[in-house]
Amino acid sequence: MYPHMSGFFSVYGISTGLLVSGDDIIDRVISSLKDTEAKSIENGDILLFAESPLSTTEGRNIRLDDITPSAEAYRLSEKYHLDARLAEVVIQESDTIVGGVPGYLLAGKWDLILPNAGVDESNAPDGWVTRLPADPEASAKRLRDEIRERTGKDTAVIIIDSRTHSMRLGVSGVAIGCSGIQPISDERGKPDLYGNKLQVTRRAIADSLASTAELLMGEASEGVPVVLVRGYPYIRCENCRIETIPAEEDLFLNLGK
Amino acid sequence: MYPHMSGFFSVYGISTGLLVSGDDIIDRVISSLKDTEAKSIENGDILLFAESPLSTTEGRNIRLDDITPSAEAYRLSEKYHLDARLAEVVIQESDTIVGGVPGYLLAGKWDLILPNAGVDESNAPDGWVTRLPADPEASAKRLRDEIRERTGKDTAVIIIDSRTHSMRLGVSGVAIGCSGIQPISDERGKPDLYGNKLQVTRRAIADSLASTAELLMGEASEGVPVVLVRGYPYIRCENCRIETIPAEEDLFLNLGK
Repeated sequence: MYPHMSGFFSVYGISTGLLVSGDDIIDRVISSLKDTEAKSIENGDILLFAESPLSTTEGRNIRLDDITPSAEAYRLSEKYHLDARLAEVVIQESDTIVGGVPGYLLAGKWDLILPNAGVDESNAPDGWVTRLPADPEASAKRLRDEIRERTGKDTAVIIIDSRTHSMRLGVSGVAIGCSGIQPISDERGKPDLYGNKLQVTRRAIADSLASTAELLMGEASEGVPVVLVRGYPYIRCENCRIETIPAEEDLFLNLGK
Repeated sequence: MYPHMSGFFSVYGISTGLLVSGDDIIDRVISSLKDTEAKSIENGDILLFAESPLSTTEGRNIRLDDITPSAEAYRLSEKYHLDARLAEVVIQESDTIVGGVPGYLLAGKWDLILPNAGVDESNAPDGWVTRLPADPEASAKRLRDEIRERTGKDTAVIIIDSRTHSMRLGVSGVAIGCSGIQPISDERGKPDLYGNKLQVTRRAIADSLASTAELLMGEASEGVPVVLVRGYPYIRCENCRIETIPAEEDLFLNLGK
């Protein structure tokens, strides 16, 4: 555990102002932190980065007018009522298209089902769309290394996105990349309150931290692309990655079987 | 908003010790809080209660030896490899059984798909199972009213459970009842950073707070059944409830269509 086990933690929103392609996001975080109660980055802090502003700084925005839709993109755009150029970008960003609802394609990407493969028209200049970071795990490692170089502090970094959940209204957070933190806490075999061993419980620590961060981020013009969590006793891990699960263990994909 | 919009909030775990049927959970929270950094309940605090210890105090535990399985319970217990008496309790707690995986039935309840309808052998005495609160919305209202009566403070209360997510390892939090807080923040029509209107974004505030609380609760013998969130600017609402969404708007249920 790092730092010490404690009964409380604090969550700080870091308002950096608008970020554009090529901006140094760590520099902006360090200078913006001075205006918050957190003041600076400390050992054991967890920094959570929203994918859209991060990918913007990484040059992942793309202009729709530069896209030539394929025949498949035109077919999907008519079936699901979305811009054919947007459909083309979603196809390029996906492993597979598994379906859709009006306005959205459901895309397979990174072994997940992502609406529009994470391609988004919000928080991009008019006529542009944001794409997810090309490699969120690599982004997380790079950001953590940069923080260590500039501040000397050892932190954890999580890249987050929003997701919907079956039958529930509204989005919450999901981790798509991490560095320095074990994203899943495996509690199988631990004793419960009565000394029975827990059988199947693994806790999605990184996803829950992502949802915590989203409480301060919002999706609109709040301009809070980074959140700092201080005092949470996470388990350090140098080579942990976000994991998906085999389809045969997936409750949702086994509905009706 | 209540209290004031702020850039940070704090999250406190409240360790009450073991709770049994008939225990006064609010009394235990108030006395346990004195040993935490939060000290006491204040106006604007959000209190989150894990469903299992709460339902235990509400007398919702049941002894498996008192259950006579039906023929359908025997059939499901063989197909999905679980105790026939447990299968019978799940059937009784469900609106419908929609499938299963080894060890679990997938149950329709409250318009959600819940593994074993929330019936759990963890954190119950040997031979007993916990059931979800009979009416979590009513529980939330009752707890909030009791807090107001005993402390004079106006709070929000959320009853939480754990959920899995399609293709993801590990559980995070979900709100199953609330009082005094608007569970969904509707941001449709708000401007994004570039002044474009957000089209489809509703934020699951109560679910994200549930995930935040689970970071301190755990599923094992931590004995932290209640978490207090202080400083988060939630939107007050007297008659808000947790909502599900129509199946035709559900991305997951429309896979492949």
